[in-house]
Amino acid sequence: MKSFQKIRVVAFDADDTLWLNEPLFQQTQEKCRAVIQHYVDSAELDKRLYETERRNLKLFGYGVKGFILSMIETVIELSGGRISGKDIRHLIDLGKEMISRPIELLDGVEETVTALSGQYDLMIVTKGELFHQESKIARSGLAEYFKHIEIVSEKDENTYLQILNRHRIPAGEFLMIGNSLKSDIEPVCRIGGRAVHIPFHVTWTHEQVEQRRLDGIEYVEIENLKQLIPMLGEV
Amino acid sequence: MKSFQKIRVVAFDADDTLWLNEPLFQQTQEKCRAVIQHYVDSAELDKRLYETERRNLKLFGYGVKGFILSMIETVIELSGGRISGKDIRHLIDLGKEMISRPIELLDGVEETVTALSGQYDLMIVTKGELFHQESKIARSGLAEYFKHIEIVSEKDENTYLQILNRHRIPAGEFLMIGNSLKSDIEPVCRIGGRAVHIPFHVTWTHEQVEQRRLDGIEYVEIENLKQLIPMLGEV
Repeated sequence: MKSFQKIRVVAFDADDTLWLNEPLFQQTQEKCRAVIQHYVDSAELDKRLYETERRNLKLFGYGVKGFILSMIETVIELSGGRISGKDIRHLIDLGKEMISRPIELLDGVEETVTALSGQYDLMIVTKGELFHQESKIARSGLAEYFKHIEIVSEKDENTYLQILNRHRIPAGEFLMIGNSLKSDIEPVCRIGGRAVHIPFHVTWTHEQVEQRRLDGIEYVEIENLKQLIPMLGEV
Repeated sequence: MKSFQKIRVVAFDADDTLWLNEPLFQQTQEKCRAVIQHYVDSAELDKRLYETERRNLKLFGYGVKGFILSMIETVIELSGGRISGKDIRHLIDLGKEMISRPIELLDGVEETVTALSGQYDLMIVTKGELFHQESKIARSGLAEYFKHIEIVSEKDENTYLQILNRHRIPAGEFLMIGNSLKSDIEPVCRIGGRAVHIPFHVTWTHEQVEQRRLDGIEYVEIENLKQLIPMLGEV
């Protein structure tokens, strides 16, 4: 395994890397489904909601507000406008509940971030709504450990190049940790950084650190953030 | 008047400084009012919408999506849930229309930004939704002239200190230009920067640059961005 000795900046994705996110969207979607079940068929709702979200993405971006607006739009469409004001209000309230709920840190996050902050410059690089992400970072109790917080609208090679350039970080000294191969791993490896993949919600039968290769990039896969510190110490 | 000779970085607010924004919110609000006029009294709507927006601000932040969600919530409340799905869909469409409409640059912006970009490092410091603001900057056609773009959730002294620190800009070399005394002028002056206020939608009877004092801070007020370049040349 390649050495991590050169690494000086450790950057983390936030949603589903530091704390729970996607399951909350799914829970919210479940609750929305319960509100509107007498208007629409569930399977049809999922399909059409996905289509509406895709169509609205370039206008709304990512986040809860766009999700709720797309949900309302879809239900109005599928119910032929029959959904009541009271039930729409209920959908809005479910969105608010999701925005304001406490942050649930994932296993191993707190001790890893605390321990690493003494040896490395820590960074958050996260996609999403500025206001909501800032609120989550503040409520996570972890903000003080991060030297830089970057909330971006896309996570591609260009985004990472800009971040490294802005903070004068050589790519070889940069390590990104996250649950998304597309957003956290691939673009960072392509610009010469290192990356550690922590798949979200995957249970392995064997707990080990794996060196992986994919379309010409190399990265490391771990199951739990607790594996990170021992790994960084390896030569 | 104090000299602007030391200035090396010129930062602009975006909404209602570089391009139209508030009038579009007002137009959208007018159109929403037309959609829902048979459900609610207009004066009552304005009052209650304002209350809803204030209440939701800490959850939704600033921006069009939060505005539309607050509008829907208010109308459902005021109409006792009687508003039809079709009319709510219409409100969502008005929000989308506002998000996607072309950017209207204010008078003097294009020539001033183009001219200044050769002599100064230009920056945008704007509040709002990350995704929507980035989209507006891209569609403005001005992005290439700005060295740094900062989209923030609040514009207070701390925000400006962080920005100057991150880009290693001495406060005395920083000039902020904007239409809001609270967000663009006061915090910048308090941390030792300079500021130029361009009130939005104010017609003066005399076109002149005025030195102003307010609660211990000093700033300059101009009526049109075209006055900026001659002023920066003054000693």
